[in-house]
Amino acid sequence: MSKNLDMSSAAEMLAAADDILIITHKNPDGDTLGSGFALCCALRGLNKRARVVNADKISARYSYMTNEHDAGELDFEPKYIVAVDTDAAGLMGELSSFADKVDLCIDHHGTNEGYAKALWCDPEAASCGEMIYELLREMGAEITPYISNCLYTGVSTDTGCFRYANTTAKSHCTAAALFESGCDFIELNRLLFETKTRERAKLEQLAMAGIEYALEGRLAFITVTLDMLERSGCSASDVEGITAMARTIEGVEAGVTLREQQNGNWKVSVRTVSLEAAALCESFGGGGHKRAAGFECSGTAFDVKCVVCGAVEAMLA
Amino acid sequence: MSKNLDMSSAAEMLAAADDILIITHKNPDGDTLGSGFALCCALRGLNKRARVVNADKISARYSYMTNEHDAGELDFEPKYIVAVDTDAAGLMGELSSFADKVDLCIDHHGTNEGYAKALWCDPEAASCGEMIYELLREMGAEITPYISNCLYTGVSTDTGCFRYANTTAKSHCTAAALFESGCDFIELNRLLFETKTRERAKLEQLAMAGIEYALEGRLAFITVTLDMLERSGCSASDVEGITAMARTIEGVEAGVTLREQQNGNWKVSVRTVSLEAAALCESFGGGGHKRAAGFECSGTAFDVKCVVCGAVEAMLA
Repeated sequence: MSKNLDMSSAAEMLAAADDILIITHKNPDGDTLGSGFALCCALRGLNKRARVVNADKISARYSYMTNEHDAGELDFEPKYIVAVDTDAAGLMGELSSFADKVDLCIDHHGTNEGYAKALWCDPEAASCGEMIYELLREMGAEITPYISNCLYTGVSTDTGCFRYANTTAKSHCTAAALFESGCDFIELNRLLFETKTRERAKLEQLAMAGIEYALEGRLAFITVTLDMLERSGCSASDVEGITAMARTIEGVEAGVTLREQQNGNWKVSVRTVSLEAAALCESFGGGGHKRAAGFECSGTAFDVKCVVCGAVEAMLA
Repeated sequence: MSKNLDMSSAAEMLAAADDILIITHKNPDGDTLGSGFALCCALRGLNKRARVVNADKISARYSYMTNEHDAGELDFEPKYIVAVDTDAAGLMGELSSFADKVDLCIDHHGTNEGYAKALWCDPEAASCGEMIYELLREMGAEITPYISNCLYTGVSTDTGCFRYANTTAKSHCTAAALFESGCDFIELNRLLFETKTRERAKLEQLAMAGIEYALEGRLAFITVTLDMLERSGCSASDVEGITAMARTIEGVEAGVTLREQQNGNWKVSVRTVSLEAAALCESFGGGGHKRAAGFECSGTAFDVKCVVCGAVEAMLA
């Protein structure tokens, strides 16, 4: 197990280190990349050698972070390894061979497995970016506009632009400080929260064309078939956010999305306003959280909707 | 013209007043209502009589603010009148007869006409709610959870939940303070930003079904006909946000929305990423802002799209 550190101790360890390799998690999102690149840039500003690596290709939407900072081969032998926003060795993907060599892990997941030699973990933090901001201030690093952009990316993506339930006063305070440090939040908000691909827009349109309401509008079904994926040009990974759409309709207490699988099964996602989503899905062999859960089953879409409708009706009664 | 005040002077005037009528603007939005009801509740907490009035019916989505605070007849003779978030007498609607009796106007619009006897206006503020928060702190009012909910409504709606370009560090700082005062941001964010009516969802779906791309995807057209309004069950006022949709598609540099009018004309709204929207629309007799502008014209939808396409192509060249 890791030795648990507080922020000051983590700052001291980094201050004493050099030739630092920073690992972000696979399928990298805004928070792991923002945390990693901000830390890397700040360490360089403190006259250290540092470099970010991760197992997967970084999405083009984050190119404003990577353009200057991950080009070319690693030009030094790492002497100190840091992992950011990565709670399990398995999340390092092809880099997981590094897992038992990680000197310091900085993370905000309460589920952190403790694979690193030392761990600074704050499960109260909405994003790893907020933690890095605090750390860099403690280390006396200059918060440049580039670093501000990276950290704002972390804070804003992990909080859904300050809409999700995990948002805290500290998330807002960090954003305020990053505004003062020159982050280009106007362009970042446009890129991160107001841009979707043509394919995704088409899939949403097809999905919404077939929305069905039941139980006097308290239940809504959205069905995403393989045919819709093909017609829209989307891949299965583009479907994620679709599951949130049905619940956004006024009066809907349970929004249910059926996604057709290659084997003919349905992945069923349930999003609720106040009903117990996990309990509902457990009765179908699935599980999840209070307001977001799921299960997988076979049968026709009509059959699935009928049984789910019965279960939701019973819960509403 | 109004006498211009700073915040402390506005606080002093309110501290000396009693039997206070607070006027919000017509078609009341989250910021005018949040500002008005927060101020009203705080003044009552300071043992004053106060009451909010406005010319129009308040949308049911804001019922968490109005439930306790605007019931029944006015039970006192107003001795002091305050207008919030209202930059022109005309915005008071049926209450505009009060305009020359307004003792104090608190507003964040640089366009304020100065109709009140005294004006505290901060055009740098993203929302009137931020100003009221500062004012209440200055007056030593208790920021209750109810007041926090009202002010969070103001700040978050006027900044599009911290996405719009007008958002400032102070908007985030105010939100952080309101979190600490117990605002129920989870429920408010769901109500204000993740809920749309069935009719609106249907209209969006119909509009997106007909999206057309031109100029290799750099221009997108959305057309909203009277028939679509009828099929979706929407009224003309439900169409507002639709104009933002076309620009959200990746690669689109100009998103243009044509809305059919009762007289057969088209209202054309242009939203751009970096092109000069106002300049484009001025060439068709309209106008607006740099990234959001519009004009009205006659002709078939096809004709309108052709001329707009030509104009956008010329600007892109």
